[in-house]
Amino acid sequence: MFKLHKTLRSTKARLGILTTDHGTIDTPIFMPVGTLGSVKAVKQDDLVEHVKAQIILGNTYHLYLRPGCDIMRDAGGLHSFMEWDRPILTDSGGYQVFSLSDNRELSEKGATFQSHHDGSKHLFTPENVVETQRILGSDIMMMLDECPPWPCEYEYAKESMELTHRWAERGRKAFLDSDPHYGHQQFQFGIVQGGTYKDLRKESARFFAELNTGGIAIGGLSVGEPTELMYEMTDLNTDDLPEHKPRYLMGVGTPENLLQCVARGIDMFDCVMPTRNARNGQIFTRNGIINLRNAKWKHHHQYLDENFPSDLCRKYKMSYMHHLFRNSELLGLELASLHNLTFYLWLMEEIRSHINNDTFAGWYEGMAAQVDQRI
Amino acid sequence: MFKLHKTLRSTKARLGILTTDHGTIDTPIFMPVGTLGSVKAVKQDDLVEHVKAQIILGNTYHLYLRPGCDIMRDAGGLHSFMEWDRPILTDSGGYQVFSLSDNRELSEKGATFQSHHDGSKHLFTPENVVETQRILGSDIMMMLDECPPWPCEYEYAKESMELTHRWAERGRKAFLDSDPHYGHQQFQFGIVQGGTYKDLRKESARFFAELNTGGIAIGGLSVGEPTELMYEMTDLNTDDLPEHKPRYLMGVGTPENLLQCVARGIDMFDCVMPTRNARNGQIFTRNGIINLRNAKWKHHHQYLDENFPSDLCRKYKMSYMHHLFRNSELLGLELASLHNLTFYLWLMEEIRSHINNDTFAGWYEGMAAQVDQRI
Repeated sequence: MFKLHKTLRSTKARLGILTTDHGTIDTPIFMPVGTLGSVKAVKQDDLVEHVKAQIILGNTYHLYLRPGCDIMRDAGGLHSFMEWDRPILTDSGGYQVFSLSDNRELSEKGATFQSHHDGSKHLFTPENVVETQRILGSDIMMMLDECPPWPCEYEYAKESMELTHRWAERGRKAFLDSDPHYGHQQFQFGIVQGGTYKDLRKESARFFAELNTGGIAIGGLSVGEPTELMYEMTDLNTDDLPEHKPRYLMGVGTPENLLQCVARGIDMFDCVMPTRNARNGQIFTRNGIINLRNAKWKHHHQYLDENFPSDLCRKYKMSYMHHLFRNSELLGLELASLHNLTFYLWLMEEIRSHINNDTFAGWYEGMAAQVDQRI
Repeated sequence: MFKLHKTLRSTKARLGILTTDHGTIDTPIFMPVGTLGSVKAVKQDDLVEHVKAQIILGNTYHLYLRPGCDIMRDAGGLHSFMEWDRPILTDSGGYQVFSLSDNRELSEKGATFQSHHDGSKHLFTPENVVETQRILGSDIMMMLDECPPWPCEYEYAKESMELTHRWAERGRKAFLDSDPHYGHQQFQFGIVQGGTYKDLRKESARFFAELNTGGIAIGGLSVGEPTELMYEMTDLNTDDLPEHKPRYLMGVGTPENLLQCVARGIDMFDCVMPTRNARNGQIFTRNGIINLRNAKWKHHHQYLDENFPSDLCRKYKMSYMHHLFRNSELLGLELASLHNLTFYLWLMEEIRSHINNDTFAGWYEGMAAQVDQRI
């Protein structure tokens, strides 16, 4: 499924193509997050035409609770339910069990939790999250893992990682013993854990390298630790991951993070930041970060960037965008969400182009500083 | 500016074309409401491509307060500010002064009120609302009027109407003594009042017939009175209005209202209903009214109407639309708003087509009953 076309020598940046039954994905890639079967405030058509999204993400925890597996099965899976015919990756739900649900309890068997909607009790196991993701019909499914918080004691991180590994073996077996429901192939990715302890991180990466899943994710990062530590752990992990498997850094991140982590050998990213921050008026651009609510835009009757292919940049003046946000107009949320995703995908295309032209090493650090400044 | 092409004998339905410097408008027409310079949840591009809106409405009260006249002037008017190059009609702000602001006070001079945002004090006069609408640059501006509540004593309705008439004379003079700011022509419409008293209604209609404005609106209806009374007053008023002036029934209404009032000689309508109700999950269709939140749609994995040209009808299954509304996904608001406006404009096109083919009289009552039923 994954073909590595190029690896730079100057940095660890790689160029590849991931092939699924719903289409191919150029890596490095960013995956917009469609938690509940909708990338918030963005139409599916716009994701294709304007954002140029190649793959999106759905959240198993959310979709399992609402609309639920019966409706998902009757609808013929998530692709059919949300009318999206490009690839979809779903997480296992583990992360949300720990971050959203009430009264969660961990055991060897799995994770029990109460729904954040109605208090109903549920159990996620390494096996049943495979089955749930068979019902969702995602092209790439993730294994159940425990994502420890940061900071976290060494002993906790070690035990948690070992549990994640035991769960991974069970999950792999459940995957191999089951079949897709809708005729298209599904792949399974494991998730490296180990907190921010180098020896655990290395042990976990080697464990997953051996497990021979379709791809490998790096989890447990971007959970509050300093950015430099996130970069260090990512760099460490990619050293031990098999070259010919795609590497997915979960929940990352800012445009700067994407540039820095591609340089450290990452192929895939997802994050709610472009859409969530858009809804607060924060706009990412090639020249830096803008807050549309800032009074400086009130009288700015100019377009932000007539050469950037988003409506927010070249079709509406900044004074109008400011007005929309100041008055909580839904159009502002739509235009900003669409813009930020278009920018993220544009940045990934720039990254791929620079890798392809062997100009990435000399470019990415300057670009990272540029996109990170406040303007 | 207005050319009447046809009037039916069987009903009072008319077919015409309104010409402005921003384009022509086929009447009867419905005008989507863009209160603050945005038709809520709908992109300007979609208004053109999908809704096929020929003219939209902006609210002077809201735009006067936010972003304010200085920004509107600097932006070059509302067309430029919101990037809309088709016709715009603006109201005078009078209605919102009475329905939204605090501590409003009426005098011969005009209406003083406090902003509902920050409590600041303002005065609207028949003259300065002309100037504000010169700054907004709407193609059609409305006169300041007082819209009495329903029910309302005869004496109050009479005095209020007389004040509206005196204001109208001042407003007409202010209009004729001033020039457009942006090079395109502007028209002014008067507003018939008189509560629900037949003699006052007739007196007011005749007054405005004499005033020789570009068009004439019927105001003060759809403010809580029984629907039959609204139809009766509309019918009464159009008898006294000049044939060759467009007639605009303000703030109306449901699809059924549009059909019934076209039959009573109305050419133009505006209402927040299609967008406001869309945001609550209420969908208007040719077969009746639907609530997307209703549990009956939960397992309905079919399209609502593959032959109706809206994404909601033919691109997404009802189970998905229900899911979006149940989970307050912004995409639901967008798709429903876009659908309802597309339906309203589709209905007006049907109406024009039936008038043109002389089939309106035999069609509109059955259609009114059909679109009004709950499904």
